[in-house]
Amino acid sequence: MGDHSGIVNHGFARVDTGRKERRGFPEVIYCEGKTAGEVLAISKTILAADGVVLGTRADQEQFDLVSKEIPIARYNSRGRCIVIEETPLPKIDGVVGVLCAGTSDLKVAEEATETLEVFGNRVEKFYDIGVAGIHRLMAERDRIEACNVLVVVAGMEGALPSAVAGLVSKPVIAVPTSIGYGASFGGLAALLGMLNSCGSGVTVVNIDNGFGAAYAAATINRLVRQG
Amino acid sequence: MGDHSGIVNHGFARVDTGRKERRGFPEVIYCEGKTAGEVLAISKTILAADGVVLGTRADQEQFDLVSKEIPIARYNSRGRCIVIEETPLPKIDGVVGVLCAGTSDLKVAEEATETLEVFGNRVEKFYDIGVAGIHRLMAERDRIEACNVLVVVAGMEGALPSAVAGLVSKPVIAVPTSIGYGASFGGLAALLGMLNSCGSGVTVVNIDNGFGAAYAAATINRLVRQG
Amino acid sequence: MGDHSGIVNHGFARVDTGRKERRGFPEVIYCEGKTAGEVLAISKTILAADGVVLGTRADQEQFDLVSKEIPIARYNSRGRCIVIEETPLPKIDGVVGVLCAGTSDLKVAEEATETLEVFGNRVEKFYDIGVAGIHRLMAERDRIEACNVLVVVAGMEGALPSAVAGLVSKPVIAVPTSIGYGASFGGLAALLGMLNSCGSGVTVVNIDNGFGAAYAAATINRLVRQG
Amino acid sequence: MGDHSGIVNHGFARVDTGRKERRGFPEVIYCEGKTAGEVLAISKTILAADGVVLGTRADQEQFDLVSKEIPIARYNSRGRCIVIEETPLPKIDGVVGVLCAGTSDLKVAEEATETLEVFGNRVEKFYDIGVAGIHRLMAERDRIEACNVLVVVAGMEGALPSAVAGLVSKPVIAVPTSIGYGASFGGLAALLGMLNSCGSGVTVVNIDNGFGAAYAAATINRLVRQG
Amino acid sequence: MGDHSGIVNHGFARVDTGRKERRGFPEVIYCEGKTAGEVLAISKTILAADGVVLGTRADQEQFDLVSKEIPIARYNSRGRCIVIEETPLPKIDGVVGVLCAGTSDLKVAEEATETLEVFGNRVEKFYDIGVAGIHRLMAERDRIEACNVLVVVAGMEGALPSAVAGLVSKPVIAVPTSIGYGASFGGLAALLGMLNSCGSGVTVVNIDNGFGAAYAAATINRLVRQG
Amino acid sequence: MGDHSGIVNHGFARVDTGRKERRGFPEVIYCEGKTAGEVLAISKTILAADGVVLGTRADQEQFDLVSKEIPIARYNSRGRCIVIEETPLPKIDGVVGVLCAGTSDLKVAEEATETLEVFGNRVEKFYDIGVAGIHRLMAERDRIEACNVLVVVAGMEGALPSAVAGLVSKPVIAVPTSIGYGASFGGLAALLGMLNSCGSGVTVVNIDNGFGAAYAAATINRLVRQG
Amino acid sequence: MGDHSGIVNHGFARVDTGRKERRGFPEVIYCEGKTAGEVLAISKTILAADGVVLGTRADQEQFDLVSKEIPIARYNSRGRCIVIEETPLPKIDGVVGVLCAGTSDLKVAEEATETLEVFGNRVEKFYDIGVAGIHRLMAERDRIEACNVLVVVAGMEGALPSAVAGLVSKPVIAVPTSIGYGASFGGLAALLGMLNSCGSGVTVVNIDNGFGAAYAAATINRLVRQG
Amino acid sequence: MGDHSGIVNHGFARVDTGRKERRGFPEVIYCEGKTAGEVLAISKTILAADGVVLGTRADQEQFDLVSKEIPIARYNSRGRCIVIEETPLPKIDGVVGVLCAGTSDLKVAEEATETLEVFGNRVEKFYDIGVAGIHRLMAERDRIEACNVLVVVAGMEGALPSAVAGLVSKPVIAVPTSIGYGASFGGLAALLGMLNSCGSGVTVVNIDNGFGAAYAAATINRLVRQG
Repeated sequence: MGDHSGIVNHGFARVDTGRKERRGFPEVIYCEGKTAGEVLAISKTILAADGVVLGTRADQEQFDLVSKEIPIARYNSRGRCIVIEETPLPKIDGVVGVLCAGTSDLKVAEEATETLEVFGNRVEKFYDIGVAGIHRLMAERDRIEACNVLVVVAGMEGALPSAVAGLVSKPVIAVPTSIGYGASFGGLAALLGMLNSCGSGVTVVNIDNGFGAAYAAATINRLVRQG
Repeated sequence: MGDHSGIVNHGFARVDTGRKERRGFPEVIYCEGKTAGEVLAISKTILAADGVVLGTRADQEQFDLVSKEIPIARYNSRGRCIVIEETPLPKIDGVVGVLCAGTSDLKVAEEATETLEVFGNRVEKFYDIGVAGIHRLMAERDRIEACNVLVVVAGMEGALPSAVAGLVSKPVIAVPTSIGYGASFGGLAALLGMLNSCGSGVTVVNIDNGFGAAYAAATINRLVRQG
Repeated sequence: MGDHSGIVNHGFARVDTGRKERRGFPEVIYCEGKTAGEVLAISKTILAADGVVLGTRADQEQFDLVSKEIPIARYNSRGRCIVIEETPLPKIDGVVGVLCAGTSDLKVAEEATETLEVFGNRVEKFYDIGVAGIHRLMAERDRIEACNVLVVVAGMEGALPSAVAGLVSKPVIAVPTSIGYGASFGGLAALLGMLNSCGSGVTVVNIDNGFGAAYAAATINRLVRQG
Repeated sequence: MGDHSGIVNHGFARVDTGRKERRGFPEVIYCEGKTAGEVLAISKTILAADGVVLGTRADQEQFDLVSKEIPIARYNSRGRCIVIEETPLPKIDGVVGVLCAGTSDLKVAEEATETLEVFGNRVEKFYDIGVAGIHRLMAERDRIEACNVLVVVAGMEGALPSAVAGLVSKPVIAVPTSIGYGASFGGLAALLGMLNSCGSGVTVVNIDNGFGAAYAAATINRLVRQG
Repeated sequence: MGDHSGIVNHGFARVDTGRKERRGFPEVIYCEGKTAGEVLAISKTILAADGVVLGTRADQEQFDLVSKEIPIARYNSRGRCIVIEETPLPKIDGVVGVLCAGTSDLKVAEEATETLEVFGNRVEKFYDIGVAGIHRLMAERDRIEACNVLVVVAGMEGALPSAVAGLVSKPVIAVPTSIGYGASFGGLAALLGMLNSCGSGVTVVNIDNGFGAAYAAATINRLVRQG
Repeated sequence: MGDHSGIVNHGFARVDTGRKERRGFPEVIYCEGKTAGEVLAISKTILAADGVVLGTRADQEQFDLVSKEIPIARYNSRGRCIVIEETPLPKIDGVVGVLCAGTSDLKVAEEATETLEVFGNRVEKFYDIGVAGIHRLMAERDRIEACNVLVVVAGMEGALPSAVAGLVSKPVIAVPTSIGYGASFGGLAALLGMLNSCGSGVTVVNIDNGFGAAYAAATINRLVRQG
Repeated sequence: MGDHSGIVNHGFARVDTGRKERRGFPEVIYCEGKTAGEVLAISKTILAADGVVLGTRADQEQFDLVSKEIPIARYNSRGRCIVIEETPLPKIDGVVGVLCAGTSDLKVAEEATETLEVFGNRVEKFYDIGVAGIHRLMAERDRIEACNVLVVVAGMEGALPSAVAGLVSKPVIAVPTSIGYGASFGGLAALLGMLNSCGSGVTVVNIDNGFGAAYAAATINRLVRQG
Repeated sequence: MGDHSGIVNHGFARVDTGRKERRGFPEVIYCEGKTAGEVLAISKTILAADGVVLGTRADQEQFDLVSKEIPIARYNSRGRCIVIEETPLPKIDGVVGVLCAGTSDLKVAEEATETLEVFGNRVEKFYDIGVAGIHRLMAERDRIEACNVLVVVAGMEGALPSAVAGLVSKPVIAVPTSIGYGASFGGLAALLGMLNSCGSGVTVVNIDNGFGAAYAAATINRLVRQG
């Protein structure tokens, strides 16, 4: 294990301790497929360098080991995130809206929300407002417009981002989820729906990628602060 | 060419002159891939048996030959239909609504409308009311609810049927169109979207199949009359 | 948890208690991915508002908890439905036919049948009459024609709806199932087969979506009553 | 251009003049993508060696050049075959049945029929008897059963082979066609349908491959003769 | 449970006891997804009617129950078949060859072999002779040519049927298997390879469908006997 | 043709003259599939309401008719855009970067650039800097970082957005193009590559959708102005 | 147009004149989608820097313009290559074998052959030796083994590389072609077949990418020289 | 079990003891789907013939049985390889580089590394240097160029091979991995990305096929030795 040019080499991973400098946010740990020990080791390296750690797609076992050594760690079980905030990132003024279509999409929405909050954003949640009950969406129009940027999570046919983009003027980042069965093909239907959205200016991330949408939203929200 | 059991055999096609009896509507000519001469020959056979002819996916050349011999034939060029009504089918009381999301979907919507009218249905058109401007749809809610059954045509992400099904209580037959580009994959995105609709009770036909949706709608509307 | 405009907000879900008014049927609980506790909580809300509860894709554990608190609940284990009928929905005169091609498709056919009965429809079952033994189908032609609308369930190549639509004059709603292996690709073969049906007027729902087909059929059957 | 071990090397192609010996039928020319001159040159080589030439997927221009030099050549324009029979192959006693579902499938059915006849088989044609009018198929049951082997051609959902296999005891070779639109995906729907046939013992060839099905059927029919 | 026109209705299945008469072979039980009790009940019905039972895709538990009541039942564990032969089907003179490319394809090859033997065919096995060691295939050329019909089983790229069809003159029925990983996509690569075979006259069945290939081969081999 | 609630109904299209108010930008004309006359009519309506018109996917013939009546119209032939700026939109201070990987991607990059400029953004172009010559990208790092938001256009494997996102801290909107052949499957390879980008925070639009990416970028750049 | 760090910027393209130094071969012009004038301009720049130009996927019109100004240019019309060799690249000792399965694959094989020769390799051609006539391949075994590296081109099921890799010990680079129809899906079948090859050590390039395979083979053949 | 022409027939497998002679490397055991006993039996046969055994995709249970009888066997648990080196293969002078993009790709990279070492190659590892941190790759440029051939392993969007091929002049063999989720579709995104690489001369193997890439690399590296 050595340290040169902002890279700490663990053998199984090279931790990029220069990333906060270069990209504005510290490296985030994608926990899936790592042992609890590996997650712990990487967490310590990032914590030492940046004072804040976010681990996504983390399971209970990984959290248990981490929290034994780092008691301030906390776990968002629905969003499957490990969060350690010794030196929290500075708060940003603007609000990011997180909308989701159905109860089953909450897992992905929570990953987005947790990521946004760790990155210093204030989040307003609009959960379970899919297009099958469009009056609920229209009733919230003004609060949604008041956000700087919107993360819109939906499975099945993924129609919510189109409806939102038609109502408000803010950037819409769409997250298809794997919720559905049969011809949803693991989220493909929602993904294609969002890519073909008739609502201008909708951009899309990978299926179930609540983290990626939040990262993009945070990058945008941070810009407003700098404006 | 012979005639037995309600089948007239042209060699290149066996015309089912018993279909009107058996299924309630006469056989319809799918003109794509047939010569103008073949369309004419089949038209005459059906006209003689049933008094009314509908040819779908017909081109101008096919119509020109047919109309030379059968002057009462008319052509819906947008919907690509040849219609010959010597003995029009009886009119049905109820109304069928035809909705479409965008201007580009008109070709398919017109095929549905023409088919419905030839089959004796009154049609109310709601064109260009896609979800990107959801207020237009909501403004028409009562007129849509007043229809017996709804044919909803949309390309791109195909979100309109979900929104309609959430607003009204009538059967919704969704028609995906091939309108779009890139990841629309020739209408696949709209098709998958409609199959995964979060609006309960939406049923779907093949991409660009305005005729099939109209046929199903006519079958339903006719039921109401018999009720 | 609050109540405004016919929405009861449980946090994890907003129950649409205005749906029975708006759409004619109460909200149905899609149980997959919900905890038994969540299913129970939503069941109570709907039961209080509408007097009748249908939960689809429910497992034994969910039913056990629900039935402990609500003893009149019953469980259709093949169709995986929880049913609670305190104030059953009014019965409709017409009959809906449910056909299925093979024994393996029964799970989906039973979901359709249970949904139809809860929604007040009388159901006639035609099980295990696939096209490999076409004489069985032809023998039932008259009883099938006597139904108002038909739900036709089939896996593998999904040919049954085409054959049915060629024999009778009633609306056919086709349900592809995921029964098969290899090039059935989880029901894709049956789905594509039904979408390309040469039988005019066949409409299609998502793979294994017995509930959706039943919902559409109930909407149609109800129309006849109103005719 | 040389000749060794039954191979005549034209540079652009090595003609396998030993194939009739080895496989029982002479080499067949797949004309698509070849110039008229290349088709002519290969035709002469095969004609000299085997006395009979079959060219599939041939266009009018290729035929015109060939027939100028070889006047006994004839052209099946629907089946797109060039046939030259100087020394016709010996006739086989048994009959091969060629069935097709719709008029649009005739192109492929004719390729199969022409191939079968050149290879010495007697063919019985059952055209335009798709499952949407199942009574037509059932009426022909005995004549179909009387054939040794059946080539069954169908596009759209490709359901005909399943129905045929359920009725008779003879080998069924299914040919999906590219007839259809939208979710037929160029014949994929029919191909998948046939591969998943619930009718035991159906075997399948490539989309639009009338020649391949005929070749297989001829190989089987020849066996019976040898029995 | 009743009995009319050769159908015994078990409720969960209608057993087609007329099939042996109509199609030449008794109905075969597809055991996957059935309970052991259901397999037993159907077995008894078929045994009583036809004297011979074949159950495919059967597991050990199903066999254990069946063999407790029907002691002459035996189990081919690699091919996953239950066989009960009280009155074995008459033996046919000709030989069917079963070839397979690799050890992993044996499961499917054994299903084919067992089916063929139960249906009265003599089988010659050529296992583990894939194209990566083409000399092994060429060494067996004469014994392969001596068979009446060939079932050729291969996974991965599925090249064996092409090579076999190029060497011999007998009908080749290709069975793609799901053996492979990554871009084999569950057998899709082998399936497409076989459908596009450059070896004329290869016909194809569904992925892993050893039974179907054997059924088709038996139908062909029986023809030779009748010749 | 009427005018109510900001909708001008042309029959073939309802022009949303309220969109500039609601969404911040006027409605844009998607010219593909419209006649030159329709493009002209819609252009006049938007010009009268908003003073600025952008038509995308426009061909020369459409432009010729428009420019005959509206002489200030100009045509970006590579980007296929018609632009009419009577009352140009106000200029925004920040800069949007448009990067593209290869020469063949210029068509899409130009659509993005033109859209951005019409919407009041200053654009810096970084053309032909794909990852096969990564030193070119690294040399431009500082100028790229100086932009507020980046539109990154790439075909083939679509790797450029990942590399850019790894180098700078600004939002990256990726546009896959249909440039490529064979396994690019019309841009699918690039689309999937971008959706799976290892560079955090990359969001994606439809294949060849330069307009959509520009629209999203403009929405973001406008936010900074408001900050 | 400027020149810095080995990049000549034409506006529409940045020509990488440093590539010969860095990668060993000069930049190659992919002509598809470029105007004849652009091809000429880039040709001149590369010719001035490197003395040798290769343009792939070039059409006759592009060649005509180039050859008017650069008379030593020559055109391989089957392989669609423009070649200008003022200072030919040095010749390499080893031989590269180019094999192709059928006549229709020659277009791709010729692109490979031309590329190899321009890059200084001696090529031995083995055309039209597909697996349907495996004896032709086995007869050439020794001459194939004598090559340093093999480019193996095949369409349809793409089985040739597996057979070759089983016979010899040299690196095999497989090129799937788009030759075929129906379930070849534009070369997908051949591509998947090659990726799943049971012949160890086969590597694969994109469909129809004769150039890429040749480039890789040249890189390997050059290594041997350096050994 | 017999032995003729270099084939030892175990019934369940024919071990090719002539392969080392014919192809230069002994047969390798693909352990997936084999019992521990089968792996042991084949291991003994190969060990006796060649003195060195490599088993890929081996699990712990298979290794435990093998090592009980053959104590010198060792197990690479990350790469899932069993290695027995009684008479190690001769060492080759040149170096093969193994690069991988992320920690999750190590499993595949280790399979490649182990295979290369057993086959006598010296390996230099460059792990965790994906394009999201492109400076790490550029810093290693000279050490990478010093290798004879490169195996480049990457999941997600699979962009690393393109970047590597742009930097160095050596053959690049790309291995897509199944690492990713959602629209990675089990490695399809990485596979398509690599096949469409803009870096000339990249060749590709199947998803997760570290062994195949190593085999090809060893074949190339061996050539250099012979040069």
